[in-house]
Amino acid sequence: MIPERGFPQIEFEQRLEKAQQLMNDSNLDVLFFCSEAEVRYFTGFLTQFWQSPTRPWFLCIPQKGNPVAVIPEIGADCMGRTWIEDIRTWSSPHPEDDGISLIQKTLEEFSGSSKTIGMPMGVESVLRMPLTDFVTLQEQMKGFHFRDATPLIRQLRMIKSEREIEKISHVCQMVSNVFESLPEWIFEEPTETDVFRRFKMECLQQGVDDVSYLVGGAGPGGYSDIISPPSGKKITPGDVLILDTGCVFDGYFCDFDRNYALEHADDAVRKAYRVVYQATEAGFEAAVVGNTTADVFQAMNQVLESNGAKGGQVGRMGHGLGMQLTEWPSNAPFDHTMMEPGMVLTLEPGMQFSGNKLMVHEENLVIREDGPEIITRRASAELPVICR
Amino acid sequence: MIPERGFPQIEFEQRLEKAQQLMNDSNLDVLFFCSEAEVRYFTGFLTQFWQSPTRPWFLCIPQKGNPVAVIPEIGADCMGRTWIEDIRTWSSPHPEDDGISLIQKTLEEFSGSSKTIGMPMGVESVLRMPLTDFVTLQEQMKGFHFRDATPLIRQLRMIKSEREIEKISHVCQMVSNVFESLPEWIFEEPTETDVFRRFKMECLQQGVDDVSYLVGGAGPGGYSDIISPPSGKKITPGDVLILDTGCVFDGYFCDFDRNYALEHADDAVRKAYRVVYQATEAGFEAAVVGNTTADVFQAMNQVLESNGAKGGQVGRMGHGLGMQLTEWPSNAPFDHTMMEPGMVLTLEPGMQFSGNKLMVHEENLVIREDGPEIITRRASAELPVICR
Repeated sequence: MIPERGFPQIEFEQRLEKAQQLMNDSNLDVLFFCSEAEVRYFTGFLTQFWQSPTRPWFLCIPQKGNPVAVIPEIGADCMGRTWIEDIRTWSSPHPEDDGISLIQKTLEEFSGSSKTIGMPMGVESVLRMPLTDFVTLQEQMKGFHFRDATPLIRQLRMIKSEREIEKISHVCQMVSNVFESLPEWIFEEPTETDVFRRFKMECLQQGVDDVSYLVGGAGPGGYSDIISPPSGKKITPGDVLILDTGCVFDGYFCDFDRNYALEHADDAVRKAYRVVYQATEAGFEAAVVGNTTADVFQAMNQVLESNGAKGGQVGRMGHGLGMQLTEWPSNAPFDHTMMEPGMVLTLEPGMQFSGNKLMVHEENLVIREDGPEIITRRASAELPVICR
Repeated sequence: MIPERGFPQIEFEQRLEKAQQLMNDSNLDVLFFCSEAEVRYFTGFLTQFWQSPTRPWFLCIPQKGNPVAVIPEIGADCMGRTWIEDIRTWSSPHPEDDGISLIQKTLEEFSGSSKTIGMPMGVESVLRMPLTDFVTLQEQMKGFHFRDATPLIRQLRMIKSEREIEKISHVCQMVSNVFESLPEWIFEEPTETDVFRRFKMECLQQGVDDVSYLVGGAGPGGYSDIISPPSGKKITPGDVLILDTGCVFDGYFCDFDRNYALEHADDAVRKAYRVVYQATEAGFEAAVVGNTTADVFQAMNQVLESNGAKGGQVGRMGHGLGMQLTEWPSNAPFDHTMMEPGMVLTLEPGMQFSGNKLMVHEENLVIREDGPEIITRRASAELPVICR
């Protein structure tokens, strides 16, 4: 069953209600957003047009009442098809005032007596507008307080609704199909570049909207890098291949990987695979309400360390997942986020072996009251060796 | 001929030399970058990992000597395969100090007596790191001056090398093939969603690395929105379809569109097509050394206005193109950038007709000493009507 695209209006009303409750709790008069995920979260505005850095896009969430979009005229039609009714536009790009006076007026309209504006400024946020324009806005709004609202938006977006989970699960299932079919076609593709291209086409064929993220590589007995595009290298017997992908359905990501050995595999890589697999098993067991993401990290790390491996260089072993490839929280020793039903997480233990070789494994799950629900189809417990 | 991937080291040395000349001219001790395009421009560091907002990535360009990468440990191997030798890493994500002390130390090391640090803060730039971390960095570096270096990086990136042009031209040719083949397969695809998916697969089949941007839509007699993802709507005789795509080869974009009528087309849409086509013709004629981007805008706008159309709401009619889907400059009345050989531009006139219907046409070109070189294969002069 393909989930319905978009969301009913009640979804946005619920997000808004929760946001306004949190705003009230933290004395924020208005929320100010300029980033894709946040604008989409509250409006449903879905477009790849964000890839053009030319124009800024703004959204205000007042303490009471509905969101107000302050956007370039070019987006008026697309935004007009969302549930947002108050859409204020200007002709952008504009050389002197690219929406700044309009967003200022709007923020001032909704700032109450405390004149406090919340916006994401913290971990995992970016300022998706020119810094000079933001400084200008602050200077023109002397007397107003711009405060970090990262904790608020993190708390909201971290817990997914069933409608969001349905989309993420759907893309996980489609990509699981592709990973499971890979042994049938890989030997038709001579090079890493060809394998990546074929993988993308197979994902599209399955029904994903975009293969927004595909990294990995292959090397004899193992790989040493997991964030690179494909090399032109020939796929060779003895290679260990990893593909790690973030495919998208209706604006929601999966993020998981699979490892394969071609024709044969040595004991070192088989053992490394078993270790990271066992680490994900431990991660699943720890991914329960009442535990923290640090507990999940420790559970996985203990498996790695008891097998003589260290996992720490990439700083964490998995993360939140949803509208972005990676989201809060982190499965990391420093992140003590309490597990809550509706969180979608990746488990991503990785280790070095045989010198500089890497082995990374990743699965996706939803935290439920009665334990984690795995939404990827579980990788095999042993490193798959694909033979012609 | 498929262009070679990556660049020889001389390409980066030339970029660096030009940057350092401009730094000298504008009294900047060091350049500080945290955005994908700029880091890649000077290093060759190419990865989709930027889609994860979790970790910041930094690059310093000193007034003398080679660039210094200050990056999360997870990217060390990938960066190690570029020409960059001075790679400084930390274990990221880090809850208290996510690279800030390391980048501070590096910036201080290369700041000369004037203690002046340039970074992009202006038009079309974003701050791809948490704002609180940037504020902290500024506070810890009291006495240092952070200045806007947007004009410098704009001037550099706006003029493409022949190696860059080769990649952009290559992706333009591959996508031209796909647009030209569309009439052969479109009736196999029942809905807009199917057409988009098929288009992406055909582009991958042609050899593009990613279909990073595909927007458009279809409507009876015309469309009213050009930035949306596909609706689930059935493709119907009488529809006018636009597809606008930014495909990528080795990190370089094309950005152009094509229009098609299905089975039949009325006079209004045929005329609108002819007008925007004639506008691009006028744009090509104006796209010569000695003219400005404002001149190119005016040439196109004059054709639109003399046909009773107005083009102004989206603020411009085309833009620079290269490492990003859209780059400086803009073909806009306010942008008086002088045409220079090596600039890659889109021409993108658009107009409203028959109420709220839109007609947009887009081509890509390179400015040459002796006139523009069209790198897309020219659209047909009349609206193509595709029949079963």
